[in-house]
Amino acid sequence: MRTHRIAVIPGDGIGPEVVREGVKVLEAATTRAGTFRLEFDWLPWNCSYYRRHGRMMPKDGIEQLRAYDGIYLGAVGDPSVPDHVSVWQLILPIRKAFQQYVNLRPAKLLAGLESPLRHKEARDLDFVIVRENTEGEYSDIGGRLHPGTPVEMAVQTSVFTRYGIERVARYALSLARRRRGRVAVATKSNGLAHTMPYWDEVIRSCRVEFPDVDVSFYHVDALSTLFVLRPETLDVVLATNLFGDILSDLGAAVVGGLGVAPAGNINPEKRFPSMFEPVHGSAPDIAGKGIANPIAAIWSGAMMLEHLGHPEPAAEVVRAIEQVLAEGRVRTRDLGGTASTEEVGDAVVRAL
Amino acid sequence: MRTHRIAVIPGDGIGPEVVREGVKVLEAATTRAGTFRLEFDWLPWNCSYYRRHGRMMPKDGIEQLRAYDGIYLGAVGDPSVPDHVSVWQLILPIRKAFQQYVNLRPAKLLAGLESPLRHKEARDLDFVIVRENTEGEYSDIGGRLHPGTPVEMAVQTSVFTRYGIERVARYALSLARRRRGRVAVATKSNGLAHTMPYWDEVIRSCRVEFPDVDVSFYHVDALSTLFVLRPETLDVVLATNLFGDILSDLGAAVVGGLGVAPAGNINPEKRFPSMFEPVHGSAPDIAGKGIANPIAAIWSGAMMLEHLGHPEPAAEVVRAIEQVLAEGRVRTRDLGGTASTEEVGDAVVRAL
Ligand SMILES: CC(C)[C@H](C(=O)O)[C@@H](O)C(=O)O
Ligand SMILES: CC(C)[C@H](C(=O)O)[C@@H](O)C(=O)O
Repeated sequence: MRTHRIAVIPGDGIGPEVVREGVKVLEAATTRAGTFRLEFDWLPWNCSYYRRHGRMMPKDGIEQLRAYDGIYLGAVGDPSVPDHVSVWQLILPIRKAFQQYVNLRPAKLLAGLESPLRHKEARDLDFVIVRENTEGEYSDIGGRLHPGTPVEMAVQTSVFTRYGIERVARYALSLARRRRGRVAVATKSNGLAHTMPYWDEVIRSCRVEFPDVDVSFYHVDALSTLFVLRPETLDVVLATNLFGDILSDLGAAVVGGLGVAPAGNINPEKRFPSMFEPVHGSAPDIAGKGIANPIAAIWSGAMMLEHLGHPEPAAEVVRAIEQVLAEGRVRTRDLGGTASTEEVGDAVVRAL
Repeated sequence: MRTHRIAVIPGDGIGPEVVREGVKVLEAATTRAGTFRLEFDWLPWNCSYYRRHGRMMPKDGIEQLRAYDGIYLGAVGDPSVPDHVSVWQLILPIRKAFQQYVNLRPAKLLAGLESPLRHKEARDLDFVIVRENTEGEYSDIGGRLHPGTPVEMAVQTSVFTRYGIERVARYALSLARRRRGRVAVATKSNGLAHTMPYWDEVIRSCRVEFPDVDVSFYHVDALSTLFVLRPETLDVVLATNLFGDILSDLGAAVVGGLGVAPAGNINPEKRFPSMFEPVHGSAPDIAGKGIANPIAAIWSGAMMLEHLGHPEPAAEVVRAIEQVLAEGRVRTRDLGGTASTEEVGDAVVRAL
């Protein structure tokens, strides 16, 4: 029986609370399936690790992770550490080192949830964001000039490569083929006149390989209004690192909030481990209270199962989540209930 | 009697159609007030000008505009001209040359309109976006490397100066003082680790001058969810050029769409002319049909009156717009009606 080794990085804030429920559900799903094993190693890399060691993970952290089949992460960030330090020493190096160039973020209204959009229902809200996850605006090229003077400034350079754009564009176009055949590309070619026309141009050059897919370009400002006004027109949304970050939170908002929004940081070739984590952050304000919604983390775990080659158990986990939400009795506060994080995890296990 | 000279740039697409109604309403409001005069010069600078002259405006366009008290613009952009060319030769140079460092974009649900947000009403939707409008991500520093090779790339550098951040931050903080005393700052200090921590730092240094204003920092991804989930918590939103662009379209979406969203590109010191234009674009798909909603343009005209020192007539125009919307009989298609652009303009004039 095949064993997958999973590195669990619970992280900060509500991360450990939601990841605990996720692992519980993954174990239950694995036992039920009976066709593979998961082995979890817990890695205590987070902001308290930083306070003790002056870094977010060991020097050879990336090397250690390379040996795993998957990475399951909670959330990173604590008010005690500047957030550009915490993420640039943990999440972002993992995404980049392991060529997790697809950040896949489904935005789907689950049965039992109501959208905050007045006239929209489940059939209107089922799209997926494909976010470029290794380059673009998230670059560490930059710095400050003339500190302490009136002409002080900070600069930062976005970098878009043909290599980086082509691979994520091809992924999005193939994905659309397996869905409803439409890709909405987020651009800002009018305002960002060097990088964005290039982004569009490379995507146009890939598009000829997918004559059956319908590709439209939208300025990101206009596209964000579609998320609110006409989400039913969306199928696959292809976006840069930064635009994908914003649009996926917005996507989460229109389908019930960050408590239910999963993500996979995927290396499609499986040359390197992929990383699965909820879209939400560490939410220090509610950490330690046992009230965080674990559904985003549980669903991210299901995405990991699918990526590891187990689509059936993955689908069962999503069905179990939907059953719990549809019954409506066990819900955390963000969804109008009073249940604890643990009670939601238990309910999903029972529904399995 | 004081005369204000206004440069009218109708622009492309629906621009001329909506600007015509705006000027009609401005003339009616001026006649009613009887305390000042407006003199309009129509400047045909747009994409057809570009096709004839190879540029969007004359060489001395900025010099010509300098003589005016205000600029009233429709929209710019036509499929025949790459959009980074059209905007970088017209709107963006005007914003930058005239130090219109505040792009002021009210997001307010007018009487008679329904928000697309299920549980939100007029009292929940009344905030204003202050967008930095001269620097940041909208820079022309960048280019391409290794064209035609597999390692081809495009780069672009954002530039944030202390000078640029301080002036817009002070504007936003003072504005909050005259409103409900709260500023939500859009940042992305975790991901964009050079420029955004600097943006935050400069804003924090200005904030001490405004101890009575409550300032909160939100990552732009999380902030975009507040626009949908808890807009009632927003008062003044302070954002960079790019984030303000996205958030103001999103703000428009939650209060009824781009058809009703006005904007002022303001030089608060009045050393240079300010420019007023709807948030919407040139909408080539509906241009020439007479069905575009002129309300955003009319409201932008009202903002110009206010900026020119005539708050009473400005308020009357907004009241007239609200009356027409509340009556509900004369509406363009985007608001569920069948009226033409001209009929809406006429109705607003009658309501005055
Ligand atoms: C036309 C374009 C450059 C412009 C911008 O991005 O500033 C527009 O979207 C706006 O919001 O005024
Ligand atoms: C923590 C932060 C750097 C991260 C991002 O911006 O990518 C987060 O917002 C996300 O969406 O995963």
